[in-house]
Parts: sequence; C-alpha cells; structure tokens
Amino acid sequence: MGKTPSAPTLNDVAKAAGVSTATVSRCLNSPDRVIETTRQRVMQAVESLGYTPNFAARVMAAKRSFTIGAIIPTMDNAIFARGLQAFQDQLREDGYTLLVSSSAYSPEVEKEQIRALVARGADGLLLIGHEREEQIYQYLEKHRVPVLVAWSYAPERLQPSVGFSNKGAMRDLAHTVVDAGHRHIAMISGILQGNDRAQNRVSGVRDAMRSRGLDPAALTLIEAPYEIEKGASAFAELMSRAPRPTVVMCGNDVLAAGALREARSRGIAVPDDVSITGFDDIELAEIVSPALTTVHVPHREMGRKAAQELIAIVEGRSEGQSVCISTTLVTRQSLARPSGR
Amino acid sequence: MGKTPSAPTLNDVAKAAGVSTATVSRCLNSPDRVIETTRQRVMQAVESLGYTPNFAARVMAAKRSFTIGAIIPTMDNAIFARGLQAFQDQLREDGYTLLVSSSAYSPEVEKEQIRALVARGADGLLLIGHEREEQIYQYLEKHRVPVLVAWSYAPERLQPSVGFSNKGAMRDLAHTVVDAGHRHIAMISGILQGNDRAQNRVSGVRDAMRSRGLDPAALTLIEAPYEIEKGASAFAELMSRAPRPTVVMCGNDVLAAGALREARSRGIAVPDDVSITGFDDIELAEIVSPALTTVHVPHREMGRKAAQELIAIVEGRSEGQSVCISTTLVTRQSLARPSGR
Repeated sequence: MGKTPSAPTLNDVAKAAGVSTATVSRCLNSPDRVIETTRQRVMQAVESLGYTPNFAARVMAAKRSFTIGAIIPTMDNAIFARGLQAFQDQLREDGYTLLVSSSAYSPEVEKEQIRALVARGADGLLLIGHEREEQIYQYLEKHRVPVLVAWSYAPERLQPSVGFSNKGAMRDLAHTVVDAGHRHIAMISGILQGNDRAQNRVSGVRDAMRSRGLDPAALTLIEAPYEIEKGASAFAELMSRAPRPTVVMCGNDVLAAGALREARSRGIAVPDDVSITGFDDIELAEIVSPALTTVHVPHREMGRKAAQELIAIVEGRSEGQSVCISTTLVTRQSLARPSGR
Repeated sequence: MGKTPSAPTLNDVAKAAGVSTATVSRCLNSPDRVIETTRQRVMQAVESLGYTPNFAARVMAAKRSFTIGAIIPTMDNAIFARGLQAFQDQLREDGYTLLVSSSAYSPEVEKEQIRALVARGADGLLLIGHEREEQIYQYLEKHRVPVLVAWSYAPERLQPSVGFSNKGAMRDLAHTVVDAGHRHIAMISGILQGNDRAQNRVSGVRDAMRSRGLDPAALTLIEAPYEIEKGASAFAELMSRAPRPTVVMCGNDVLAAGALREARSRGIAVPDDVSITGFDDIELAEIVSPALTTVHVPHREMGRKAAQELIAIVEGRSEGQSVCISTTLVTRQSLARPSGR
C-alpha cells in the first residue's frame, strides 16, 4: 500500500479517538450499532488523520479491498463507455470502487494490467471476451481473484460471462440483409486476432448466408481497427471491388460511421447506391445521417448485471452464473433493398 | 496488497532462482547489468511463480508502485477518451500502469476515488480541473501523492496543470459568431456547479459579447449535463423563446450533436434557420450533418504532455510545470450569418 510512512492505521484512529480498534471498525462497518457521540468522535479522528475508511478498514475485517478492476480493450471510443459506467454505478451502490485499465487491444498490455490490478489488491476482475492465454486464468486462480467475462456470452467456458451472443445477433441482422435481396455482401470486421466477439460476428454473417442458400465463402471481408478513419478507408477499398457490394455490414457502429462518412464524401448515396449496417447501437448510430440499421446491445443492463454477478462471486454468494442478455434489431434508414431490382 | 497468502515475494523468486534478492532486483530494474544466463534464470522464476515484476519489485527498490491514477468526470462519452488513451500510452512507454476511475461529476464520488487510489498505492494522480475542496489537496499533500490537473490551464494555482484556456478558446469562437452578425445568442452550457471548465466557457462567451459592444447579460443560458438527450431537450426549450436565438453555442460537441438532432426532427434548418457550434472537436463533430464549427482541442497532445509532466514530478525531476496547449477554431458548416440580414 505504498505510502506507509504517512498512511494512518486503524490503530492510529483508535488512539486518537480514545477507543478500541474494534469500536473503530464497528463505526465504519455498522455505524448504527455504535452510540452517536462515540461515532462522532471516531469519524472526527478518521477525518483529521485522513484515514481511508471506505475499504482500508473493511479489508482488515474481511480481507477485501472493495476494489474491482476492469480491463477494456480501448477507451478511445464509446463502445465500452456506457456499459462500463453502468457497471461502476452498480458497484458503487454496493460499496465497491472501480479501477479501469485499457489494453489497447494488446494481449501483452492486458497481461501486465491484470498483474497490476491483482497486486493492487483487486477483489475481482471484469475482462472482455474469453480469448486469452490459459496461463492468465491459472495466474488468477492461483491468486484467488475471481474473473467475470462480459460483452460475450459463452456458458460452455469455465469463466462465467454476462453478455450476449455476438454470433446470433449478427446472424439475425444478416438474415434481414439477405431477405432484403442483397447477394453481394461485404463486411468490414474488427481485427479478428484475439477478439472472439469480432470472430463470432463474422461467423454470424456466414451462418446467415449459408442458411439462405448463399455461399459463405463469397463474403468479401476486410478487417480494420474499430476507428472511424479505418472504417472510411475500408469502405473506399470495398467500393473499388468488382462486382461492387450492394451492402456493407460493419463490425460495429464506429466502423459504420466511417463508412457513411466516406460514402458521403464520394457522393455515394446510402442506402440508394449501397446499404450500410452497424452493431452496438451507440448514440452515434442515431445521429449519423442516414441513421444506422444496427443491433441494439443493452449496454447498461449488461453492465449492471455483470457488476451484480461479480460481487456475488466475490462475496461468496455465487459460484459464477452466466447471464445471456438479449439484443434487438434496430431498423433505421441505412439499409434498403438493393437498387436495380 | 491484498492476497498475501499466495502472492510470491522477491525472496521467493530469489530462492527459486538460487540468487540473492539484490540480483533479482537488478534483473528487474537494470537487466543490462546482469549476465544473460542469470537474467534468464531469474526471469524464468518470475514467470513460473507469477511474480509481478513490473512494480512489486520496483516498489521495494524505489518505494514506488509505478501506478498512476486518473479520475475523470465521465466515461459515458468520448470527451475524455482520446486524451486519456494518449495519457496511458505515454505512461506505458515510461513503464507506468494507469488505473482510471470515473466520478460521474460527483465531488463525493471523486473524493472516495482519490482515497481509493492513494490507498492502492498510486504514485501520482491526474485530476480534471482545479475546483474541489481544499481539504482534498491537503490530504494528497499529507500522503505525498503529487497531483496534476488537466483539461484546464491555470498557472496561478498551486497544483500544476497541463491544459488549455477554456475561456480564451470559447471567447475566440464567440468573436467569430458575433462577427458573423449574430445578436441573439443562446448557450447550452454544461452544469456549472463544480466545473471550472464549463464556467470558463460561459465567461468566454460573455467576454466576447462585451468586447463587441453587446450586453453580456443578454446571453440566454441553459445548463445541461453533457449528454446528447439533454442537448436535444435544451435546444427544444431555446426554440420556444422569443426572440428566438439565431445561434446556439454549445458547451461541447455532445450537446451540439443533441441540438442538431433536435433541429432535424423539428425541420429547423442548420445553419439557415439557426446556427449551432460545439467545443472539443471529437470525431462526432465531423460526422454529424451539417458538420460542426467547433474548437479543436488537441487531446492527444494534452494527454501525452500531462503524462510526461506527471512522471517528471513523481520521479523528482520537476517541481511541477504548467503547460498551455493551444486550441484552434475549426470552421465547418453549422455556423453561418443569421438569415434575413
């Protein structure tokens, strides 16, 4: 805990308030069991010494830090923002503080951050997706730090997950696309390596093609990092292919927003010349013009439920239950029948 | 550090590798001063024990955790995302891990999180804006945790800041607005209470009005949380006022995007019927239609410089230098001369 020379202890507070450490502990954990004048004296000592009651005391009582760590792939856009804020809101209601790290989609960085959070005493970790070195899960088990996976639902895995079926959600959207009459389908996917959510979204499109009698190998696929710029340049590349796709399905709304921007700057009308779809239904999806047909992910619900489940595990009330969150299709203006049909 | 029963120590690594703890420390801190075979043996022990070399060892050597904390007001949109990612990238290059918390614009929550990060051993803190209880700064000083303020430049304050002049940037934009012929100016500001950046942006607009001979008290002002929905409803309210403003200056791009959305849904043409401006120049600003005239904040530059300065302070190489980042005006389609002139 770093600054030991100056960090006041439970003992210091007890001395300053003229009470036992047990009384200080009771004041912090069950204040209604302490008479008011004592409680006031103790809280005054807590305040004047700068003691950190919110967990330091509870750690001693419960061997817990009341700190939860979360490692998300990026903070650079809004994909994880909303779900994470809800995750934090729920943690806070239950008395836990959230510390977040961003791995910039690097497994190496994620590994360092997992170790950092474990060494900082995190009671539990939220990770995104299941795909990572087995060794990391062993490391977490060795240190008895429970982990919950979100943004992905995979009940067959050892680690519990609170998320949605990336494959199923994208398959539903792709069915709608094919049923609208599209045969030349292109996809701008996130980088597939190390990202099981992105892999499953591609599988979902291929599944839908297959089930509608199209050749899944005919899918034109480009991978791009989840950035507006990258979505724009991938879209430019797709428009130079022959035959030109009549629809571009994007791995998420950020890529789709980039594709839309590029279409506008090239004078390509959406959806008249080409349709574009997204995934996530972040605020961006409704704001771009035309508004995006996309998959709505209830990020807040997922964040809240993930927090509830992770706390239940940390507090020994659950062995780790996986929860499947339902996504829905949102039909807006960016998808239409292909022209010339 | 929480999980002591299972967490391996420097001693465990030394034993497993058959070397002294000093050698382990040297391997981790100055690997080039150790012969390769020894280094390999030590690193193997580090790996197999799951020892956390990135800071645990260096903490022992340097009393540092190589962890930096940052508390931002919200993760729920992109305002802080880009700058924070750059802040983290720079920290990482210098061997530090970043842990982030979001206060949801609540001073109470921020206070808890500051204590949590201090208790978790953070070497230094990044905070947004200067305005908070004096007591918090005293607490940080007592625990010898240096703090750097970003998103605001205030060299007169005790705590060093790496940021920009919110007032000056908004004043420049407001000059352009007035010079385009606007006299009925409205502003949708962020919530002013406890937010010195928002306060300074309003002052900037008033300064510009005064310097152009307009009455600053004539500014129609609505406060709204930085959310698209809130920007939309504030815009709706402004459109019902008489005389109707010819321009709506927004405290940031998120509010402006909401205003644009509401204008579109009401059939109000931007900029023909009413002009709208933003602040920040996040990606959203370029994607909405019409694209936003706004203030470009070089978020990445600010994030990088903030990290460099904070590390210099933590490592005792700087007493704390404030750095002023230049913003620029970005002229796009959402601002024009008022109609009927």
